[in-house]
Amino acid sequence: MRMLINVPETVVADALRGMAAAHPELTVDVERRVVVRRDAPVEGKVALVSGGGSGHEPLHGGFVGPGMLAAACPGEVFTSPVPDQMVRAAAAVDSGAGVLFVVKNYTGDVLNFEMAAELAEDEGIQVAKVLVDDDVAVTDSLYTAGRRGTGGTLFVEKIAGAAAEEGQPLERVEAIARRVNERSRSFGVALSACTTPAKGSPTFDLPEGELELGIGIHGEPGRERRAMMTSREIADFAVDAVVEDLRPDGPVIALVNGMGATPLLELYGFNAEVQRVLAERHVPVARTLVGNYVTSLDMAGCSVTLCEVDEELLRLWDAPVQTPALRWGR
Amino acid sequence: MRMLINVPETVVADALRGMAAAHPELTVDVERRVVVRRDAPVEGKVALVSGGGSGHEPLHGGFVGPGMLAAACPGEVFTSPVPDQMVRAAAAVDSGAGVLFVVKNYTGDVLNFEMAAELAEDEGIQVAKVLVDDDVAVTDSLYTAGRRGTGGTLFVEKIAGAAAEEGQPLERVEAIARRVNERSRSFGVALSACTTPAKGSPTFDLPEGELELGIGIHGEPGRERRAMMTSREIADFAVDAVVEDLRPDGPVIALVNGMGATPLLELYGFNAEVQRVLAERHVPVARTLVGNYVTSLDMAGCSVTLCEVDEELLRLWDAPVQTPALRWGR
Repeated sequence: MRMLINVPETVVADALRGMAAAHPELTVDVERRVVVRRDAPVEGKVALVSGGGSGHEPLHGGFVGPGMLAAACPGEVFTSPVPDQMVRAAAAVDSGAGVLFVVKNYTGDVLNFEMAAELAEDEGIQVAKVLVDDDVAVTDSLYTAGRRGTGGTLFVEKIAGAAAEEGQPLERVEAIARRVNERSRSFGVALSACTTPAKGSPTFDLPEGELELGIGIHGEPGRERRAMMTSREIADFAVDAVVEDLRPDGPVIALVNGMGATPLLELYGFNAEVQRVLAERHVPVARTLVGNYVTSLDMAGCSVTLCEVDEELLRLWDAPVQTPALRWGR
Repeated sequence: MRMLINVPETVVADALRGMAAAHPELTVDVERRVVVRRDAPVEGKVALVSGGGSGHEPLHGGFVGPGMLAAACPGEVFTSPVPDQMVRAAAAVDSGAGVLFVVKNYTGDVLNFEMAAELAEDEGIQVAKVLVDDDVAVTDSLYTAGRRGTGGTLFVEKIAGAAAEEGQPLERVEAIARRVNERSRSFGVALSACTTPAKGSPTFDLPEGELELGIGIHGEPGRERRAMMTSREIADFAVDAVVEDLRPDGPVIALVNGMGATPLLELYGFNAEVQRVLAERHVPVARTLVGNYVTSLDMAGCSVTLCEVDEELLRLWDAPVQTPALRWGR
């Protein structure tokens, strides 16, 4: 076990204490596990709340701040947060304009956010929900009925978060979030398994010299296992899988995402191949983001997410954002 | 070999092509290996140029942009760039106000930047140099006479870059860079070795269940090898090593840096322990930065860098910066 931890039981609480110390612009309730932008609730504005199992950092806590999430609820590693966290987060950020729950499509998350929405509505908070299910690799898997929610979450949170920041009403913010999800597709590849603190050993067996195509962000099985491929071959496979499903007419934003342990040097090289395939498929690229954004602990590997954008979605993507992990504009 | 690459020979060129595609705000000369901010040269302003072996990304290319570096020269993996790259970079960014070379203390880098400075001066460019040697772990090592340059490089490039952006003259920018280096100290810990593309296997042998205290950013040996320690114990050891050498009177900026493959979840947890030790040692912390900034390919581990700041250095740290890896303010 090559982990920088104390004991598995305190990993999430320890991380939240460290996050609080590094980010005075956030309010971190370590005990109740809620991360909130310090100026919340923001008068007259819709608030986005998301959350999910820990181990995917910077998702979601690193996306809290002006222009993106109002709050995030981290669960235990690879485990859904509980409804109580979500209700607390909603209550902390609701200005009366309503709250949008951004939910990745995993059975536990879906059930808990549903329950939380009911409880929050009982408290007089208007709640809408959007389900993110962008992963084209498989339908139904270890923790999911339907497609899994992965890299597309970043697009939903950034673009709908910008709409909320502009002061758009809840039904508009919800519609934009849905549109972003409908236009986003992802495909992931693992070069190694990841190790959870609780287990202390790799969550699945991926021998040296093999890779798993279509991996989920918890190491759920993908489409197939193959002998090691080059960056060029992986890009061909992953981008084709996404483009064939999305069939974009217009420009896309590309997220070339690292799973956690793949060096940025390699991710940039992989991006060159992704851009090559997109050019060959005549898909224009409006913006590109390269880095570790939706991770899977110490997994080596990458994913490609494309989001087809119109003028409005691109404008909202470019709008200012001030969070620990994504920041631009003002 | 679990690498996302084509062939080892093209890793750096591939990464530069991918970087060019992701960052239209930079001019990337893939063939000549120079990354330049697009608006360079900036009239009347000193320009910072740095560089070094690849494999430490986002250092240095990810630090090119307004408020930090004007240009970066990436060498082969863990290999110094050549003088020709540095001269080209200097010529591309010099507005007549002069160029400051930021050089990490490795024998190859030092010699090549010295030669480049002479060549650039022959071309009529005024050049100053600052040597970064912040690593307290060991004196003299595999590639270095004296202390190694590691995490402190980020502080030198950010703070002196801000002084240059303000329009301060070369001798002032140089003096500030020197002051930052004199006040910066680092200590690194490896939980695993890293694998270079050319070698294809770990660069040194670190058995499971052991760690190396005082590691360099190329896997150079450190102070000692021990049985695995907790995050709390590692923070005690690393922060003590830094504080005992630095003996700060005033507040510090803390960089809690990942070596590449350590999950952000663990880095934030480690930061909580770093802050605890600093509080116990009565060292006030003005700012904290947590993330993968000065990496060592896919090495698991972390480093702590402290920079003791006065009012001026803290103001320059807070000044706006717009680079791929560091951005805030406007």
